[in-house]
Amino acid sequence: MATAKVREILSWYSSENPGVKANLARLMNTGRLAGTGKFVILPVDQGFEHGPARSFAPNPGGYDPRYHIELAIEAGCNAYAAPLGFIEHVASDYAGDIPLILKLNNSDSLSKGHEPCSAITGSVEDALRLGCAAIGYTIYPGSGARNEQYQDLRDLILEAKAVGLPTVLWAYPRGAGLSKEGETAVDVVAYAAQIAAQLGAHIIKVKPPKDHVEQAEAKKVYEKFGIPTASLKDRIAHVVQSAFNGRRIVIFSGGEAKGTDEVLKEVAEIAAGGAFGSIMGRNAFQRPKAEAIQLLHSVMDAFAKAK
Amino acid sequence: MATAKVREILSWYSSENPGVKANLARLMNTGRLAGTGKFVILPVDQGFEHGPARSFAPNPGGYDPRYHIELAIEAGCNAYAAPLGFIEHVASDYAGDIPLILKLNNSDSLSKGHEPCSAITGSVEDALRLGCAAIGYTIYPGSGARNEQYQDLRDLILEAKAVGLPTVLWAYPRGAGLSKEGETAVDVVAYAAQIAAQLGAHIIKVKPPKDHVEQAEAKKVYEKFGIPTASLKDRIAHVVQSAFNGRRIVIFSGGEAKGTDEVLKEVAEIAAGGAFGSIMGRNAFQRPKAEAIQLLHSVMDAFAKAK
Amino acid sequence: MATAKVREILSWYSSENPGVKANLARLMNTGRLAGTGKFVILPVDQGFEHGPARSFAPNPGGYDPRYHIELAIEAGCNAYAAPLGFIEHVASDYAGDIPLILKLNNSDSLSKGHEPCSAITGSVEDALRLGCAAIGYTIYPGSGARNEQYQDLRDLILEAKAVGLPTVLWAYPRGAGLSKEGETAVDVVAYAAQIAAQLGAHIIKVKPPKDHVEQAEAKKVYEKFGIPTASLKDRIAHVVQSAFNGRRIVIFSGGEAKGTDEVLKEVAEIAAGGAFGSIMGRNAFQRPKAEAIQLLHSVMDAFAKAK
Amino acid sequence: MATAKVREILSWYSSENPGVKANLARLMNTGRLAGTGKFVILPVDQGFEHGPARSFAPNPGGYDPRYHIELAIEAGCNAYAAPLGFIEHVASDYAGDIPLILKLNNSDSLSKGHEPCSAITGSVEDALRLGCAAIGYTIYPGSGARNEQYQDLRDLILEAKAVGLPTVLWAYPRGAGLSKEGETAVDVVAYAAQIAAQLGAHIIKVKPPKDHVEQAEAKKVYEKFGIPTASLKDRIAHVVQSAFNGRRIVIFSGGEAKGTDEVLKEVAEIAAGGAFGSIMGRNAFQRPKAEAIQLLHSVMDAFAKAK
Amino acid sequence: MATAKVREILSWYSSENPGVKANLARLMNTGRLAGTGKFVILPVDQGFEHGPARSFAPNPGGYDPRYHIELAIEAGCNAYAAPLGFIEHVASDYAGDIPLILKLNNSDSLSKGHEPCSAITGSVEDALRLGCAAIGYTIYPGSGARNEQYQDLRDLILEAKAVGLPTVLWAYPRGAGLSKEGETAVDVVAYAAQIAAQLGAHIIKVKPPKDHVEQAEAKKVYEKFGIPTASLKDRIAHVVQSAFNGRRIVIFSGGEAKGTDEVLKEVAEIAAGGAFGSIMGRNAFQRPKAEAIQLLHSVMDAFAKAK
Repeated sequence: MATAKVREILSWYSSENPGVKANLARLMNTGRLAGTGKFVILPVDQGFEHGPARSFAPNPGGYDPRYHIELAIEAGCNAYAAPLGFIEHVASDYAGDIPLILKLNNSDSLSKGHEPCSAITGSVEDALRLGCAAIGYTIYPGSGARNEQYQDLRDLILEAKAVGLPTVLWAYPRGAGLSKEGETAVDVVAYAAQIAAQLGAHIIKVKPPKDHVEQAEAKKVYEKFGIPTASLKDRIAHVVQSAFNGRRIVIFSGGEAKGTDEVLKEVAEIAAGGAFGSIMGRNAFQRPKAEAIQLLHSVMDAFAKAK
Repeated sequence: MATAKVREILSWYSSENPGVKANLARLMNTGRLAGTGKFVILPVDQGFEHGPARSFAPNPGGYDPRYHIELAIEAGCNAYAAPLGFIEHVASDYAGDIPLILKLNNSDSLSKGHEPCSAITGSVEDALRLGCAAIGYTIYPGSGARNEQYQDLRDLILEAKAVGLPTVLWAYPRGAGLSKEGETAVDVVAYAAQIAAQLGAHIIKVKPPKDHVEQAEAKKVYEKFGIPTASLKDRIAHVVQSAFNGRRIVIFSGGEAKGTDEVLKEVAEIAAGGAFGSIMGRNAFQRPKAEAIQLLHSVMDAFAKAK
Repeated sequence: MATAKVREILSWYSSENPGVKANLARLMNTGRLAGTGKFVILPVDQGFEHGPARSFAPNPGGYDPRYHIELAIEAGCNAYAAPLGFIEHVASDYAGDIPLILKLNNSDSLSKGHEPCSAITGSVEDALRLGCAAIGYTIYPGSGARNEQYQDLRDLILEAKAVGLPTVLWAYPRGAGLSKEGETAVDVVAYAAQIAAQLGAHIIKVKPPKDHVEQAEAKKVYEKFGIPTASLKDRIAHVVQSAFNGRRIVIFSGGEAKGTDEVLKEVAEIAAGGAFGSIMGRNAFQRPKAEAIQLLHSVMDAFAKAK
Repeated sequence: MATAKVREILSWYSSENPGVKANLARLMNTGRLAGTGKFVILPVDQGFEHGPARSFAPNPGGYDPRYHIELAIEAGCNAYAAPLGFIEHVASDYAGDIPLILKLNNSDSLSKGHEPCSAITGSVEDALRLGCAAIGYTIYPGSGARNEQYQDLRDLILEAKAVGLPTVLWAYPRGAGLSKEGETAVDVVAYAAQIAAQLGAHIIKVKPPKDHVEQAEAKKVYEKFGIPTASLKDRIAHVVQSAFNGRRIVIFSGGEAKGTDEVLKEVAEIAAGGAFGSIMGRNAFQRPKAEAIQLLHSVMDAFAKAK
Repeated sequence: MATAKVREILSWYSSENPGVKANLARLMNTGRLAGTGKFVILPVDQGFEHGPARSFAPNPGGYDPRYHIELAIEAGCNAYAAPLGFIEHVASDYAGDIPLILKLNNSDSLSKGHEPCSAITGSVEDALRLGCAAIGYTIYPGSGARNEQYQDLRDLILEAKAVGLPTVLWAYPRGAGLSKEGETAVDVVAYAAQIAAQLGAHIIKVKPPKDHVEQAEAKKVYEKFGIPTASLKDRIAHVVQSAFNGRRIVIFSGGEAKGTDEVLKEVAEIAAGGAFGSIMGRNAFQRPKAEAIQLLHSVMDAFAKAK
């Protein structure tokens, strides 16, 4: 039976069909955080996004697709997320071992001079035949190509719902509309979380916001109403509030690789701010496996004991 | 049984199938203005359009999607309009409590440097499965991307009609073709209302026009025929006339948040000019709930006693 | 806002999308029984099923399709149910006045010598364009053609759900598998209610069961466990229990025309047994209108005061 | 501009789209009866139904498809109805000269030993490419194959409506369920008219009923309520009443060839009974053309001066 | 029966199916010019193209969509052409009263800085459900966006033909390829008529050409072969010749509003040059109705007595 916490979270998705709810429940009932309503997900799309050497040279075991799903399983993650090739390579041999999230679009780093836009590289049909529990998708709010991304998402999310698959949405502001600093500005990240929720995402993934307000119109409001943005904890709380007052699952990425202490300090604040979890890629798979598992366990513990 | 007024208004839509008429009737038979043929609709798309803090910080209850539909129900609005995420969050728990309008396209404020164009973020299929009474859509006459918007609307409106859903069209002139002042010029707003009606909209939403004529060719005509534009009442009457001589439902937005007296003074003129109602977002949900209900009731009273 | 009773009933349909729930809510929020969770529906398919003179000669106003929808509206019924032609004739002129149920299959009495089977005479597409709140369908458990009926229903119910339409299922046991008396035997009616619920019906319509057990195997069980069937009230309670222990809406037909006292005495027992309402055709429209309204009001009162 | 009579008749079809209404108007605004709301239609499907010699030997000009459309035009009929081959042969050369009704199903007389059922021999697509104003279809109530016929009609009528084509329905009771005499029994013909109307037909074509009541259950009602059936006029009135109390267009066939006086006497009673017109095949095209035109004019005069 | 003239014109369209021919015949068999092969059509798309006040302020009755169709009917025009909204507003109430032409694309005057291109605002499906006799479409030869326009037209014209609808093509040269004067240059208008005919248009609408030759290459030819362009009559004859030597229907617009004498003088020359008629909007609906009817009658007379 689902815990009261899991039932409460599912109640926020009351318009969804039982298939979508059941897959959300699967994600919440898996791993060391099962039943807590908290999430630690292992995503490995960096091979596509940044290239293989940048991703896997620090810990060459990661060139092998089996490495990551085993890491996710051994560490007790809620789910493992990856592009089509990585998922296809392991879906059969590890069938049923851990919920899979098929990332349906991905962007490589080989071309330049255009507004950020990922290619659609997988389908809902793929997610079903591979036994996945959810689809994943990335939007770039602020991009000149955002409308095409939102519209493609509209189609995918509707198709996925119909077959009982929830959507995990990576919302990464970037593009001509934003300064580099603005990509992680607290107003912009909160806005991205809101957009993701309005587009119908079930689980929203954003970056931890910085203490910077990008938009002039927003700045007036943050000042007038004294929205606190000095501590990461406060900023996290604001982003979670911005996703339907905490009634959508919002999880945060770990970002670039860094030291264990640094990671855990950041996670502690993220957890304290009311986040539903972390999605941690490079900080996990670029470490030796034992260290990675230890780190992931520490991260899980941080979320387990929060609120 | 529908009132004579509701029957009269429905008679203007005689080419529509009974499904479209029944949903128009539902909108007119709901709330405190039921049976009068007048409308006060609560729209909450500002989270998507302007960002969460700018929208909800003034009255933080509004971060929660339930706040708005409850406000609409408690105030006795004819309908509640919002993007997919907000509608999905409440459609099941408040099923049947108030007619819903699913806004099918939305535009965020994070990107720059392109002609105004909303992304299509919902579908007619969504509107049906969520039990909505109408679809909503925004066009930007004056935008370099207007043709794509009109064409996408053509497809959506035809698809919606076939399944009995009427269309509420937000017609907001903006883009390279217009000065900032021109966006609310009386000739431009009247023109936008005409375009909306010609595109097949059932309910047309425009901004209250200012005493300014933007287009040189129009200016000659307004002067030659002495079209009065000095008072808001006269301008409203001209816009309503421009939408098939008052035989299409035209409602006006409240625009930016302002003081109660200012709102009610404007509404009094809008009602006196023959408008069919108001669509009032920020001026409603950014106030404390009790005040908002009081204001909405005053607005409804103004329309109820007009003509 | 829906009453607690309506919310409770809707909670039994939690796997449905908000569109289906909203239409169930519309049915429950209409007419004199609005908010009670009880139903009195006027069905007029007898012109098709029994022929025009047998149906309408007793009260010739009923030859006119407008008569019946006006009777349903004036009496304060929850809904009006009829085949395509009758619905089409009134759907536009009475748009929005009362929830409509389009009966998608119908059977005439002109042919002989085959197992009972209705023809499919309308579609979900028709229900949408005509603005209906539900589809209706008839199955004949016991017929040699039952499987085709169940399979066609499977398709229609799935199609209807996707667009937010619930299904009202007439479950009338008849055919080579049953004696004439067996068609209303308590075990058979209870079985039909169970089949209807298992097929996915949202509202189940059966005939009041008689104190007769048709099936030998069932007879043993009814005797062994002392299932009371002597009073109509007990039999109704057993049928309601047989439809998911009262967690599906079960309503009962009035059957052949009879005297007012007889009708009301029967209804009192039906209501006492826990039925959700009556669907009353001939006993309503074959009386003069004023008498029919009076009778329908009495029936509504009986249900309103039950439990 | 349409006459008041035509407008009144169109008002009975208020749920239809303007395309269907416009084609109904075309039928009513054509020929010598234009504007009266009355119809005389020439149908020539006997070549298919009875064979060429039985149909055309009496007046061999009729072997040529051009003969019939010219007769219909010269006589001032409202429309000409025929199967695909006859329509295709003349549709181009006489384009626009008279409204065409494409009979979409037909039955030949070469096979035996099965329940009556026509083959579908044309399509809505054919009707459009050939410039027809309506489709025609035949049902055989009483046939063991009636359900397939009703279901095929359901699809065709929906498809035709969507593209603006009304449906003319030949309702000819026959089959195992009926005695030979019963095929034209007054209760059976009235029942067939009701079924046709409930199936969504716009124009209903039945045979003039005989003074015979076929069904035992009906007989009781006809006697109890004293429904007059002695005169043809009374029987016609009853059939028209049975088609939605005269709010559907019901026209009557002339049946087998007979003498002019006999035809006109029958037509006089049909017109007096409130029929909307006649559909007259063999009695027209099996006479020499001049005589046929004279007869058709007399028939038209009878309808023109009725009520 | 069609006149010899109508038959002759239809013979030029011998590759079309009977549906297209029947609708062309309907256009030619309607109004005061019925049977002459000449056309006077009332087009009212100026509300969309120029804005409501510029279009309707001179005669405010025209704000009401009913005004125009009534003017067209009362004046005895062959057809009434308008965008979706205007057609929808009247199609049901005036069903069958006059052939309707649904203009499938339209362009507003609110945007700037791009090559001329209309938005597609209606569909063939709309034309059918609204009972129209033809579709209308505008191309801008000379525009940088001409190819998209021609290609969209290709699809629409093919789709329309399949369902029996002919195409009326507005061919208005404009865009970066042409000087302002060049838009009505005789070589350019003749060229536009040729393009329209080659694209498959059934009825071609161009502006009366001026005595100017725009293109250098054309100028040499006009001079070398002494093509007369001094009189409007000669220029009209040349344009008609350029549309398949007069074997396509070419009609001319009246252009901007002007005095009655001026209009009639121009029309006299147009008629003398062999034009098939006029399409007259502003010069008709911007006058008081009685005057407009008188003017339209005079125009019709001019065409009726020509050749």
